[in-house]
Amino acid sequence: MTWSTIVEPNPQASQHRTGSTEPRKIILDCDPGHDDAVALLLAHGNPNIELLAVTTVVGNQTLEKVTRNALAVGTIAGITGVPFAAGCPRPLVRSIETAPDIHGESGMDGPALPESTIELDPRHAVDLIIDTVMAHEPGTVTLVPTAGLTNIALAARKEPRIVERVKEVVLMGGGCHVGNWSAVAEFNIIIDPEAAHIVFNEKWPVVMVGLDLTHQALATPEVVEKIAAIGTGPAKFVTELMDFFAHTYKDAQGFDYPPVHDPCAVAYVIDPSIVSTRKVPVNIELQGTLTLGMTVADFRAPAPADCHTSVAVDLDHARFWDLVTDALVRIGEPAGVVRPESARLTAGGVK
Amino acid sequence: MTWSTIVEPNPQASQHRTGSTEPRKIILDCDPGHDDAVALLLAHGNPNIELLAVTTVVGNQTLEKVTRNALAVGTIAGITGVPFAAGCPRPLVRSIETAPDIHGESGMDGPALPESTIELDPRHAVDLIIDTVMAHEPGTVTLVPTAGLTNIALAARKEPRIVERVKEVVLMGGGCHVGNWSAVAEFNIIIDPEAAHIVFNEKWPVVMVGLDLTHQALATPEVVEKIAAIGTGPAKFVTELMDFFAHTYKDAQGFDYPPVHDPCAVAYVIDPSIVSTRKVPVNIELQGTLTLGMTVADFRAPAPADCHTSVAVDLDHARFWDLVTDALVRIGEPAGVVRPESARLTAGGVK
Amino acid sequence: MTWSTIVEPNPQASQHRTGSTEPRKIILDCDPGHDDAVALLLAHGNPNIELLAVTTVVGNQTLEKVTRNALAVGTIAGITGVPFAAGCPRPLVRSIETAPDIHGESGMDGPALPESTIELDPRHAVDLIIDTVMAHEPGTVTLVPTAGLTNIALAARKEPRIVERVKEVVLMGGGCHVGNWSAVAEFNIIIDPEAAHIVFNEKWPVVMVGLDLTHQALATPEVVEKIAAIGTGPAKFVTELMDFFAHTYKDAQGFDYPPVHDPCAVAYVIDPSIVSTRKVPVNIELQGTLTLGMTVADFRAPAPADCHTSVAVDLDHARFWDLVTDALVRIGEPAGVVRPESARLTAGGVK
Amino acid sequence: MTWSTIVEPNPQASQHRTGSTEPRKIILDCDPGHDDAVALLLAHGNPNIELLAVTTVVGNQTLEKVTRNALAVGTIAGITGVPFAAGCPRPLVRSIETAPDIHGESGMDGPALPESTIELDPRHAVDLIIDTVMAHEPGTVTLVPTAGLTNIALAARKEPRIVERVKEVVLMGGGCHVGNWSAVAEFNIIIDPEAAHIVFNEKWPVVMVGLDLTHQALATPEVVEKIAAIGTGPAKFVTELMDFFAHTYKDAQGFDYPPVHDPCAVAYVIDPSIVSTRKVPVNIELQGTLTLGMTVADFRAPAPADCHTSVAVDLDHARFWDLVTDALVRIGEPAGVVRPESARLTAGGVK
Repeated sequence: MTWSTIVEPNPQASQHRTGSTEPRKIILDCDPGHDDAVALLLAHGNPNIELLAVTTVVGNQTLEKVTRNALAVGTIAGITGVPFAAGCPRPLVRSIETAPDIHGESGMDGPALPESTIELDPRHAVDLIIDTVMAHEPGTVTLVPTAGLTNIALAARKEPRIVERVKEVVLMGGGCHVGNWSAVAEFNIIIDPEAAHIVFNEKWPVVMVGLDLTHQALATPEVVEKIAAIGTGPAKFVTELMDFFAHTYKDAQGFDYPPVHDPCAVAYVIDPSIVSTRKVPVNIELQGTLTLGMTVADFRAPAPADCHTSVAVDLDHARFWDLVTDALVRIGEPAGVVRPESARLTAGGVK
Repeated sequence: MTWSTIVEPNPQASQHRTGSTEPRKIILDCDPGHDDAVALLLAHGNPNIELLAVTTVVGNQTLEKVTRNALAVGTIAGITGVPFAAGCPRPLVRSIETAPDIHGESGMDGPALPESTIELDPRHAVDLIIDTVMAHEPGTVTLVPTAGLTNIALAARKEPRIVERVKEVVLMGGGCHVGNWSAVAEFNIIIDPEAAHIVFNEKWPVVMVGLDLTHQALATPEVVEKIAAIGTGPAKFVTELMDFFAHTYKDAQGFDYPPVHDPCAVAYVIDPSIVSTRKVPVNIELQGTLTLGMTVADFRAPAPADCHTSVAVDLDHARFWDLVTDALVRIGEPAGVVRPESARLTAGGVK
Repeated sequence: MTWSTIVEPNPQASQHRTGSTEPRKIILDCDPGHDDAVALLLAHGNPNIELLAVTTVVGNQTLEKVTRNALAVGTIAGITGVPFAAGCPRPLVRSIETAPDIHGESGMDGPALPESTIELDPRHAVDLIIDTVMAHEPGTVTLVPTAGLTNIALAARKEPRIVERVKEVVLMGGGCHVGNWSAVAEFNIIIDPEAAHIVFNEKWPVVMVGLDLTHQALATPEVVEKIAAIGTGPAKFVTELMDFFAHTYKDAQGFDYPPVHDPCAVAYVIDPSIVSTRKVPVNIELQGTLTLGMTVADFRAPAPADCHTSVAVDLDHARFWDLVTDALVRIGEPAGVVRPESARLTAGGVK
Repeated sequence: MTWSTIVEPNPQASQHRTGSTEPRKIILDCDPGHDDAVALLLAHGNPNIELLAVTTVVGNQTLEKVTRNALAVGTIAGITGVPFAAGCPRPLVRSIETAPDIHGESGMDGPALPESTIELDPRHAVDLIIDTVMAHEPGTVTLVPTAGLTNIALAARKEPRIVERVKEVVLMGGGCHVGNWSAVAEFNIIIDPEAAHIVFNEKWPVVMVGLDLTHQALATPEVVEKIAAIGTGPAKFVTELMDFFAHTYKDAQGFDYPPVHDPCAVAYVIDPSIVSTRKVPVNIELQGTLTLGMTVADFRAPAPADCHTSVAVDLDHARFWDLVTDALVRIGEPAGVVRPESARLTAGGVK
């Protein structure tokens, strides 16, 4: 009996928004990051998503770098009217750990980046998250963290009332039967396990879109070709990201095609029928020598009635990538974006 | 990508004994235990196994109870000339934890047990293990622990030379993606994680036959019928064990049919083509709050050349049970075994 | 050789503010709490202290209760023009643990409390701390936490620039050779060990006024009599606090006279010659089963040159209590404070 | 209040053997080791001790080296008729850690060693301990471990009946308010904390003669002179040991004179009025990051009636060293011991 055989797609998954015609309001908390960039483009380009705010946090690279990257992606995507705010420059308790082997020295190596036309919101990301959640109706705002959970944890601790006000937390991170930063832990969780512990233990609904799912979201050559065929600047930007990502994931983790983690969380928010999930209690290991930061899911019995956590299981690969390409088509060619060609030409070389 | 898809059966698995006509010498270290009993019957009845010794250790029940059970099973099986010795009455560091919910108050509830005709060896199990290994040629004795690893660990510590002298350790315990005594830990490991840590970190070959494998070894009605049809006392004894085991596994863990763990380890020794394995580094978590006793396997990269641990992956269910029935047929009806009928009649009732 | 014999009073302790005539600016972060109340009165009544803000945090009782208590003490003391703000209602990672056995159900059982005439600042304590530190010259603001370190840790994480801007952190908590909430851990540290880990690992100067010191600050009958003799409302309030505190410390921890912890930290800020200290590296144990929250000081070698932590060693008992009584004398009888006599009369009864 | 003020010498300490005229039977389990050598000489030379066996265990150096050293010390002391047996070559769970900075490459650098005239007992130390305890009347054998507790722990696990049969365990190790191998842990405990956990949690009386006590047992120049004045070979051997020990303790830990730990445990057995003790619950930290191997004593309340652990507090320095010199005088000049002078002449040089 393998795990996949005992997983049953949640029949309610695609129902709970049946008839919903309003776009889903989300705050994207990210650390771009190649796949974060795709997540942001997907969130911006998809009509079922209303992007309320973009916040950044240390993770794939330093806060300074990922914030610059986020602004650049927002510029490339032609995002306007959405606040971008920088958050925590380091994890709650542990030392900073970044991922240059995967994302390069800039955190988003590969494509050349334009000068940003977006001005950073003066607020701290934690306050922007709190303000945004408190300013909207209860049950309307979804948090989509695709990085370490430091900002989200701090927001929950600073303003506990957001916990019951948030609709759900759909996060990229963790994994039930697979790790990448240790044998059994995933990067976004292990870089700030205490923050993850806070987020998973608050009583809001948490959907963990982990490696079990995102390792299915491979950017195959067919996918990349389809995106390249769109022919726009943002599409070209994505293919350049994927090109770099493919090299590092091949070198560092032996993947044939890179797993594009973060947009899977956005895809789940857009259409949960693309990402099947299973209700299961999940908690974070804070003490293990070999298991620090593991998202420990207990599949031994049916989830209890009050179980507020679920994990993503199966991805509809074709429909997922259709969402991404569709978003890029909708984004088209935003006006006024100038990317420095020369820089881009030299950026392809990955050691 | 799920775990099962990345597992490749080890092509060498069935080769490393090609042409071997000599039976494999084993020491069975057990805590009967319903499935331990089947393991002992299989080891005794199979012609490819030479049973050198049977040792007992606290686990499913107290040392006193499992030792009595082991002697009773040996009597039922008609085992003669094999030393039986009692070992450690408690784990190395932790407190005693037994499994009455699974194995009943006696540790082997269900069938009535005969008076034992076997006398216990006066040696401590640890010394019997050491003496036996040191008395045979290097590379000829396989240890088959189907209980907590206290005895094996103590033997390795008391006489470190056994480590390079033992052919391999084929143990029932652990699990890569499944737990039974906690979300991610298995009973035999979690009851003495320090002992498991000792055994997994010594440089002898360790084959972990864990829950990934043994949850495939279900005693289905067809299997039980086939065994019942043998019609001998030992076969009847096994069906009575399975009857009790089915009830408790249904009640305690929701299984439709009980997984008969321990004989899987013996089956691997008899014929590794029945149990596919994969080389992978495995270590034991000693510190985790949620993960204590987890057998942490690192599947992220190909196992290094000096990897001395492997885990069982896929069971050939039909051939496995054929081995068991075949062994029972060979055992036949041992002379001189008297089981108290009256006791047996009332033993079926499981609260 | 006992610890006390190897401790040498830091000869620089009283020098580093020689000639300073300006009062020390402090933020008092507290959880009143009987001894917190005395700390607040001392800070308010002593001319060498300029109280910039009072912030509260869950600890001796819930945030709601300790905040109400802080406002009441501020009212009794006649404090005006100082912002009071409420902070975190729970620790960073662990569950809430309060101390009703020591401080009663209200967190400050014993005296009757007046209606507060102070209005709570709308800001979160974390933001008030950050704003206050950033609004003053670097090196001028001292943080004086006398509770769990949740607020301080969050402030350091939300605005890392406060760390180099703060003059020093003089905290009541921990202990080198004595515990009260476990064999080796003190309440303020163990209720939020992760927060303490954050505070002790930032590179600001940290002076730990722990149980080694505060268990010397006993409110002996002579001390209480001297305070009672002052005859004012605030003095009477203190004697009522001490009366209750004496009972619970006798019952819960076997003390003949209650140790009045928190004002020791304020006293050190006022005059470090009253509290001798020793430079020593201190860190917080986050993993121990028996030692969680221990403030582990390493006395094995002279402190390295960059050691930024020191621990309080010896208290000048007489001069310490002189500071307290002097502050109460200076506070006198603030105008407009009405304490409900009837409530007070019945409040003395401690079960 | 410092710790020393709350320690009250146990008034019963010297009474519980009042009137006893029979020597105390002990098994010395050691890892010579400079101070182990002195402990062995004291045990051999004191008329109130009957040395039943000497066992060795990895610790200050490898098992091979400390065993050779033990045999050499036995030869120098002229010990005959006492079995010497080698035990465990490594700790239960952790990796080997030795102390060459303190004891040199040989484990007993400094003096030249004679060829041993003692033949090693063929039994494993664990079996010799068990056999010896079981062969004597209950309550008559005291175990005196002055090394890591691996042998003692294994003996208790292999033969649990020794626990109630042993009179008491008087061990050198640990410390309540002082560490040497980490900020709060002592060498003998931290090198095998799981073994220590086993020993401290069994219900036999455990007297912990830790660093609190042994740091009082300094080999001052006066002491060394007195020993030198004896003029015998064994006395010369001790002064050479002390000479080397003084150098390494000065270099590695900054001591003016070396603390001679191990004979303190023997001295307590000889005459407990020389070593005051206090009953207090003690347990071993197995999980701490900073506190692994700490002997956590809980002084917060009077020890419960069933407390079976006590810790040594104050040493009578003069009477302790009188015991040592007296033993050396009694040993005199054993016949037939030849020490290679040339080796000794060059051995004094400590880098």
